[in-house]
Amino acid sequence: MESEIEMTLACPAPLADNSRILMAHGAGGRQMQRLIEDLFGTAFRNPILDARHDSALLSLAAGQNRLAFSTDSYVVQPLFFAGSDIGALAVNGTVNDLAMGGARPLWLSAGFILEEGLSMATLRRVVDSMRAAADLAGVQIVTGDTKVVERGKGDQIFINTAGIGVVQHGAPLGPRQVEEGDSVLVSGDLGRHGMAIMMAREGLGFESAIESDCAPVAAPALALLEAGIAVHCMRDLTRGGLASALVEVSEGSGLSVEIAEESIPVDESVQSACELLGFDPLYVANEGRFAIWLPAADVERALEILRSYPVSAGSRAIGRVGAPGAGDVLLRTAIGSTRFVEMISGEQLPRIC
Amino acid sequence: MESEIEMTLACPAPLADNSRILMAHGAGGRQMQRLIEDLFGTAFRNPILDARHDSALLSLAAGQNRLAFSTDSYVVQPLFFAGSDIGALAVNGTVNDLAMGGARPLWLSAGFILEEGLSMATLRRVVDSMRAAADLAGVQIVTGDTKVVERGKGDQIFINTAGIGVVQHGAPLGPRQVEEGDSVLVSGDLGRHGMAIMMAREGLGFESAIESDCAPVAAPALALLEAGIAVHCMRDLTRGGLASALVEVSEGSGLSVEIAEESIPVDESVQSACELLGFDPLYVANEGRFAIWLPAADVERALEILRSYPVSAGSRAIGRVGAPGAGDVLLRTAIGSTRFVEMISGEQLPRIC
Repeated sequence: MESEIEMTLACPAPLADNSRILMAHGAGGRQMQRLIEDLFGTAFRNPILDARHDSALLSLAAGQNRLAFSTDSYVVQPLFFAGSDIGALAVNGTVNDLAMGGARPLWLSAGFILEEGLSMATLRRVVDSMRAAADLAGVQIVTGDTKVVERGKGDQIFINTAGIGVVQHGAPLGPRQVEEGDSVLVSGDLGRHGMAIMMAREGLGFESAIESDCAPVAAPALALLEAGIAVHCMRDLTRGGLASALVEVSEGSGLSVEIAEESIPVDESVQSACELLGFDPLYVANEGRFAIWLPAADVERALEILRSYPVSAGSRAIGRVGAPGAGDVLLRTAIGSTRFVEMISGEQLPRIC
Repeated sequence: MESEIEMTLACPAPLADNSRILMAHGAGGRQMQRLIEDLFGTAFRNPILDARHDSALLSLAAGQNRLAFSTDSYVVQPLFFAGSDIGALAVNGTVNDLAMGGARPLWLSAGFILEEGLSMATLRRVVDSMRAAADLAGVQIVTGDTKVVERGKGDQIFINTAGIGVVQHGAPLGPRQVEEGDSVLVSGDLGRHGMAIMMAREGLGFESAIESDCAPVAAPALALLEAGIAVHCMRDLTRGGLASALVEVSEGSGLSVEIAEESIPVDESVQSACELLGFDPLYVANEGRFAIWLPAADVERALEILRSYPVSAGSRAIGRVGAPGAGDVLLRTAIGSTRFVEMISGEQLPRIC
């Protein structure tokens, strides 16, 4: 049966009907990408979905506002962790997806799947946190739904939010708009959300030292557009971290990108936790950080705007888009060597969001 | 401790922080209503949500189209049953909520929560069914999200859909528009969906005799509005069935309603199954049926329009709105007696949608 084994190696994890869903299919890497492309992308094919933005762009009629529409389900465990919780995450995650499409987030839906036996106090705490996060982000939760599943058929609370925003600016944003010579910025230090979850999960003592970065980033993202900065693409750095966003945008643009390891901001406590637990901060999820691709000439002005908001006060330039290539992402290390950055294939941190 | 017991009886299932989520909180009756009002309604309070429509009505700017926005999560078990499945249900349920707001459904989001170990063949079958249902209803699935939870922390597939529609007509629809003397219509025979699920769940032999009514009802609902019928309110008859819809609308309008038992269409096979299993078809969920409140003068023309669509070919007038009251719903039985119809308090059929 040697030939069968070889075929398996040549085509990793094909979506054969006799295969099964793995945790990796939800982890933000290659296997999730394949599931989305091969199964959902093929079945639901239409021009809006095919654009593969974080949010869908909708046109009602000529002369009317264009809309952005996005959804995410939140299954994070534990529900509460240093700096945030599933409620705030469910609001900010969808708010940020809309903002990455250049849209001002306005309205959210909220769908709850509750496990029988959930404490009302826990639900109330989550709901109050959603309300506070919605107020902070300037959005309204306007419609909702509640389902209850039997004990052992869910896990306390799953929340889906979908969001509608109004597109603020005419220029398209996305990987195809990225150009050779563009600079790449990140809006702050990386890895806080993922490591805060790991600390809470492992019950490690220094939990309080790392707080999730979970926050709305719509204000600085939209401020760039309002100021006339020629933003080409924005991505929030959630599942799969900065590495996955860089690979996705490079593949979408057909251009290589080179980033300098020493320019990537990682807090010392996050770096220590990553080393202790064997994670690379490039791949760890963030929930209040985004990357921006823009012309080099606009970098200084963009950084000035970004740094005027507390949520993006730590913004930095980290790299530059290079020649057309096969979507290569190159990391130049502190000692001057370079290595390729790959999208993760399997799972790194399950149920991070 | 007698006083404590009395207090409990006087205030059934208060949302005390030391109480817990019960299956009944998702069942479409009083306890779900209380959870929504006391917890979500209080926390998320805003004028759009406070309107308590099946879908939220959104205004972008003067002179622009008004939007309807709705969401539902689907946790039905089993995933496949006679006449439909969770995929078609997830599309039609949200399409129908938008149509009940007088909106033409256009775009859906799809959020999947998959349990580790789910067979890819099962997922593909569900996704293909969603695509077919979307095509039939004339909507596009434009954005989505996938999460995976560990084996034993979910139940195969949960799907959330949110939908956006464009409001087609200026007149407001809702319980407050209902007037004394209005007629009440239903769009077909009741109880199929709930009984199809029960048959599939119990493994009863005559499963093939009852097929779910799951279907999109947007076409006949919007045709009424397009024809200038003065529709005052529409409700799809999902969790809690016709009884819950009648009670909700009567409470919202402050008017009583009287319906004639013999005019309520129930197929013989559904009636037999209900008797066998101890259900009242008035309370059983439907997924392709809706009720319409409208002036008596428009009834004949409305029935003609409704009956021209296969999905609402069985439309009938079932009752009439009476004098202001405390939201009373009266059922006149075949032998001429009357009884009050109450909203269910606890759970009837868990995980029906």
